[in-house]
Amino acid sequence: MNYNYASRMANLNGTATREIFKLLGNPEIISFAGGNPAIECLPAQRVKEITADITSSPSFPRVLQYGLTPGFPEFREMLTEYVKTVGITDAKTENVLVISGGQQGIDLALKTFINPGDVILVENPTYLAFLQIANSYEAVCKGVNADDDGLDLADLEEKIIRYNPKILYCVPTFSNPTGKTYTAERRKKIAEITAKYGVIVIEDDPYSKLRFKGDYVPSMKSMDEAGNVIFVSSFSKIISPGNRTGVACATPELIRKMEICKQGTDLHTPNLSQMITYEYLKRGYLEPDLKKAVKIYGEKKACMSDAIAKYMPKEFECTDPDGGLFIWGKFPKGIDVLKIFPEAIEKKVAYIQGSVFFAEPEGTENYIRFNYSYANAEQIDTGIKRLGELFGEKLMNLNK
Amino acid sequence: MNYNYASRMANLNGTATREIFKLLGNPEIISFAGGNPAIECLPAQRVKEITADITSSPSFPRVLQYGLTPGFPEFREMLTEYVKTVGITDAKTENVLVISGGQQGIDLALKTFINPGDVILVENPTYLAFLQIANSYEAVCKGVNADDDGLDLADLEEKIIRYNPKILYCVPTFSNPTGKTYTAERRKKIAEITAKYGVIVIEDDPYSKLRFKGDYVPSMKSMDEAGNVIFVSSFSKIISPGNRTGVACATPELIRKMEICKQGTDLHTPNLSQMITYEYLKRGYLEPDLKKAVKIYGEKKACMSDAIAKYMPKEFECTDPDGGLFIWGKFPKGIDVLKIFPEAIEKKVAYIQGSVFFAEPEGTENYIRFNYSYANAEQIDTGIKRLGELFGEKLMNLNK
Repeated sequence: MNYNYASRMANLNGTATREIFKLLGNPEIISFAGGNPAIECLPAQRVKEITADITSSPSFPRVLQYGLTPGFPEFREMLTEYVKTVGITDAKTENVLVISGGQQGIDLALKTFINPGDVILVENPTYLAFLQIANSYEAVCKGVNADDDGLDLADLEEKIIRYNPKILYCVPTFSNPTGKTYTAERRKKIAEITAKYGVIVIEDDPYSKLRFKGDYVPSMKSMDEAGNVIFVSSFSKIISPGNRTGVACATPELIRKMEICKQGTDLHTPNLSQMITYEYLKRGYLEPDLKKAVKIYGEKKACMSDAIAKYMPKEFECTDPDGGLFIWGKFPKGIDVLKIFPEAIEKKVAYIQGSVFFAEPEGTENYIRFNYSYANAEQIDTGIKRLGELFGEKLMNLNK
Repeated sequence: MNYNYASRMANLNGTATREIFKLLGNPEIISFAGGNPAIECLPAQRVKEITADITSSPSFPRVLQYGLTPGFPEFREMLTEYVKTVGITDAKTENVLVISGGQQGIDLALKTFINPGDVILVENPTYLAFLQIANSYEAVCKGVNADDDGLDLADLEEKIIRYNPKILYCVPTFSNPTGKTYTAERRKKIAEITAKYGVIVIEDDPYSKLRFKGDYVPSMKSMDEAGNVIFVSSFSKIISPGNRTGVACATPELIRKMEICKQGTDLHTPNLSQMITYEYLKRGYLEPDLKKAVKIYGEKKACMSDAIAKYMPKEFECTDPDGGLFIWGKFPKGIDVLKIFPEAIEKKVAYIQGSVFFAEPEGTENYIRFNYSYANAEQIDTGIKRLGELFGEKLMNLNK
């Protein structure tokens, strides 16, 4: 049978990371491709203890029953406290929605706002799965330039005027893929400019707790006076990705709309997932565990930076992030990172081509993203060494 | 700020059951409104044992890590066995997708096929949350008539020719809301007619295991020769709704499309939710637990039928289902079930108006749906008695 698909399916392919993820069943491959937290940072012992307590409680049958779409009330209450840690001091229960991972928060925000053909502004480059979700709503994504302090304000305003976008999407702290962070000053200005033109901002914040250097910067949502910022965060990088929990924070009107959209997609986030995250936060495990995790990620990042300095061709340029999970790199023009990928896999190293992070990917085939959180120190050294040799050889051929 | 929402939001309100659900925090209210399984049927002890084993396993940290979008391989493998119990004997791993509850299976199928304005045929009446999901894709739903054996085949074909629908949605076994079941003969004909015209069928099957009377009827998917049927089932009614797991079964091409859509919505179903359902099935708990549950539901249904016979006005007509969770009823014209709802709540009984189950609700204000699985025998008797008095009084006034 020939299926007559919806038009959104024409531009919808599996995201590159998800497809590469399937390769990684092979334990011989050193992966810098995904965005997986370090397995040693996942709180297996804590979750074991928590689930034992939850399942032993006389009220456990209620956990197995249907739950409320926006999340269970005590958890939402706690999330209003949680968002204070990113500077959002005035959230009430009706400002927060439990989501099944940050991905779902983005999806629900787009479902609420996007008609086919609507324009979304994104940083250049941006989170690849966002581009995928935008495709599923048949949005048109336009890139905004950025410097080391965040989005270029003149370019932002110019593109708002030119494209009349409904949404600006950004990852202001330890961006995926670049690892960069917007300054507080820049955030404030972005909030002001978008409010002035009535543009919704999706502030995606999965990484800000993973800071191993530099100073805390408050969220853009904490500077939102117009009610146009939707803050989306995830517990995937700081508790467990497999547990699929996160939080969206916005005006009560928007949270209600997103709740209605959530009814139709998964009804509610699994109760046990919610309870695990709730109890983990309630028992005060996050702070001490984060301390350990941040130390580990800082060391891994240093290890990767060292290996890059040691093994990568001198023409290779890359970022030096203060936190998060990624280093973003650039080879000279002429190097096509995707074309070289099969050879890297032969050498048992995986990365991800940078081009998939651009709304307009033409001429970006020389960019690359490395994840440093998943591999161990020895693998990082070995993997970068192999890639240094591989890309060194390619550059030599290029310069011949 | 005035938000400029997507056009889909214009017709999207909270579903009636979800909104009523919020009322039910009040334990004094006897609820016939939702579709909750009996709390005494939820396998709390089993899940406690299973989670203890999972969290004690040395591989538990992997459960906390990211998983594959279509579900973890052993679980998918097991689901190919599971669907054999509804007559689907030839499913391979690539035919099944783990979903976060049946709701998500429907959502992903519509995402794969529906453009705004596309027509979907539904039974008259049909599952109200389906109508909600269809609204979120801006589909146009048209009702097909049915008799006690299932959809009216002449009406189905006539409406396929008239509307050129992309999808037919139906709940062939113990329909929500009517509790009726299509005969095998009727299913076969529906599969043939839809295949002839290239119409996709979503066969929603959350209830077929809950049979307390009559004979098993194989799924429509088992009669699908063209590859146009998407079978969607849920473990919500037979294991736990709070755990949010289900299965979709279709051709590998369709499963792959639905997988890509799932990437953008929740990335994957929480691993612990998947493992709980997997272990529950693997340990052979379903069959003995179902035996008990079916007995309980059969008794509750009998109890409600008896109470209806005893207390409801003689003008009230209703179905006599062989399984599932619902009785569907009809008052004489002039009774507006929704208008009377606040008075029922004053009497501490909740039900749901039948009109929300119709694609074209005009003139259906005299229909009502009762759920009999959640309340206990005493509550069923008391609740129906109160409703009998209330509606009896209304009918008296009507006939004055």
